[in-house]
Amino acid sequence: MRNVDENTITQIVLARHAEGANPRLNQIMTSLVQHLHAFAREVRLTEEEWFKGIEFLTAAGHITDDKRQEFILLSDTLGLSMLVTAMNNRKPEGCTESTVLGPFFVADAPGYQNGDDVANGAKGEPCLVTGRVKGLDGEPVANAIIDVWQADSDGFYDVQYEGNADALGRGRLRSRADGSFNFRSVTAESYPIPYDGPVGKMLEALGRHPWRPAHLHFMIEAPGYERLITHVFRSGDRYLDSDAVFGVRSSLIADWQQHDAGIAPDGTKIDVPYSTLDFTFVLNPAHESAV
Amino acid sequence: MRNVDENTITQIVLARHAEGANPRLNQIMTSLVQHLHAFAREVRLTEEEWFKGIEFLTAAGHITDDKRQEFILLSDTLGLSMLVTAMNNRKPEGCTESTVLGPFFVADAPGYQNGDDVANGAKGEPCLVTGRVKGLDGEPVANAIIDVWQADSDGFYDVQYEGNADALGRGRLRSRADGSFNFRSVTAESYPIPYDGPVGKMLEALGRHPWRPAHLHFMIEAPGYERLITHVFRSGDRYLDSDAVFGVRSSLIADWQQHDAGIAPDGTKIDVPYSTLDFTFVLNPAHESAV
Ligand SMILES: [Fe+2]
Ligand SMILES: [Fe+2]
Repeated sequence: MRNVDENTITQIVLARHAEGANPRLNQIMTSLVQHLHAFAREVRLTEEEWFKGIEFLTAAGHITDDKRQEFILLSDTLGLSMLVTAMNNRKPEGCTESTVLGPFFVADAPGYQNGDDVANGAKGEPCLVTGRVKGLDGEPVANAIIDVWQADSDGFYDVQYEGNADALGRGRLRSRADGSFNFRSVTAESYPIPYDGPVGKMLEALGRHPWRPAHLHFMIEAPGYERLITHVFRSGDRYLDSDAVFGVRSSLIADWQQHDAGIAPDGTKIDVPYSTLDFTFVLNPAHESAV
Repeated sequence: MRNVDENTITQIVLARHAEGANPRLNQIMTSLVQHLHAFAREVRLTEEEWFKGIEFLTAAGHITDDKRQEFILLSDTLGLSMLVTAMNNRKPEGCTESTVLGPFFVADAPGYQNGDDVANGAKGEPCLVTGRVKGLDGEPVANAIIDVWQADSDGFYDVQYEGNADALGRGRLRSRADGSFNFRSVTAESYPIPYDGPVGKMLEALGRHPWRPAHLHFMIEAPGYERLITHVFRSGDRYLDSDAVFGVRSSLIADWQQHDAGIAPDGTKIDVPYSTLDFTFVLNPAHESAV
C-alpha cells in the first residue's frame, strides 16, 4: 500500500474489496476498476483531461432532473444502452427484436380504448396505427398491456415541454381477444436527441449528429411472455443508417403509408393527408426462471 | 448499422467518429468506448444493474455543488486519481513525490506571513510546521508560493461547514530567500471522506472504510520548477495502509513530534500540548517543453 504507484495501484484497489461483501457487486467493480485503469493507461490520460471528465460528469448531473436524463443520453450515444439491451434480450428467431428504452418513457401513462387518439393534441399529421400481438407459435395474445409513446412533428416528447403535465402522443391500451389493437396518433418524424447539454457538446466535438430516425416506441407486457421494449422505425428515413443512439434493427423497419384526405380504413373521415402503419409484434414466451 | 447487435455495436459506434474531428478526443473516446463495452460484456451487465449505474451517477451529480465534488471522490476512491497523478508526475529520484489533489483545494486562499497561524480558529491541538523548498541539486528555492490546507480535529475542512465562508486551516505563504518557511496550524488527524452520499454507499457495499490517514496538503509553485501537489502523512496513523483514496507514498510520511505546553522552538509560549512537523520539499526542474 505504501508503495502505491502507477503500476501497483490497480491491484491495491482490488485487494481492498472485502471478501464478505456482495459477490456480484465485487465482480462488477473489479471489472470496472480494471477497465477504467486500462483506459487511463492506454491513452495516458493527462490531469487536465481527467478534470475535463470530472467537469463533464458534473454538468451532466446538473442538467439531469425528473424530465431530463443526461446520463441515459450518454449511455445511449456511446452505444452502451444498445449493447446492454441486446445482451439481455436474446430471443429465438421469429420474435420481435428489442431496442433501447430511451429517456422519454413515462410510467402510468393514461389509458385509452382501441380506436382512441393518443395524440391528445400533439402536433403532426394524423397517423392510424393497427397492429397485433402474437406469441412465437402464432397464438394471439389477448389483453396485453401496450404502452406507446412518440415525439410530435417538432421533434419533442410531451415531457420536454416546460410546464406541460399532459400526456401527448403517449398512452396505454390493451389488445383485444384476437390480439389486435388500433389507435390514432401523429406521424413519426426524425428528431434530434436533446443536444443543448454536455452530451450534445460531446457529439459535436466527435463530428457526430444528434438525429434519430423517425420511430414509434412500444412496450408490451402480457402474462407468460417476456416484456418487449422496442421501436417501429419508419422506412426511408435519412437517419436509419446513422441513428444517434444505435437503436435500428432491420426487422423493426416498417412503411408508414401516405394517404390523401378522405375516409380512413377505420371509417373515420380525415380532412387532411394522413398515414397508416401496421405492425405485428411477436412476444417471446417467458422462461421458467422468469418471475 | 441496421444489423446492430451485441457483437457489432462497438465497431459501429467507433466508425461514427468523424475523421476530421479532434484527433486526441477521438483517441480518448475510442479507448473509452472499447473499455466501457468490454466491461459490460465481461460482467454481462443486466438492465437492472445498468439502471442502478444511471441512478448512481445521477445521485452523484445532484449532491455535487461548488463545495462538494462527488465525482472527484468517486475517482479518488476507485484509484483513478492516484493513477492519473502518478502517470503525469514521474520525477527523478530525490524529488518529493506527488499525490492526489483531493476535492478540498480552494484557489486564492488568504495570504499569510511566515510564522502566522493559518488555523484561523480551526479546531485542534496547535502544530508548528517548519519546512524548506529546494531544487534537485539542493539549491534553495526562494519566494515559492506554498498553499497549505488541512482538516480540523473533527475531520472537516472549512468548506464543509454549512454557511462558513472563512478559510480555516488553509492559507498561502512564500518561502524565504533560503527556501525556508514556517507557520502554525493544528495537528493533522485522520478523517473520513464524506460518506453520506452515493460514494459512501458504494464503499459500504464493498466493505471498505472511508478513512484517510492524517495528512497536511501542500501545493508548491516556483518559476523554473514543476508544480508540486502532495501531502505529508503522519507516521503511526492506523490508516496509512488503507487510505480510502490510495494516496500514501512511503517517502511522504513524517513524524509529528509531540510536546508538552511550554516555550515552542519559535519562541512563542503555548499553554497546551502541541506538535511540531518539519519537512523538506524537493522540486523537479521544469522541462524545456513545459510552459
Ligand atoms: Fe424516441
Ligand atoms: Fe485531505
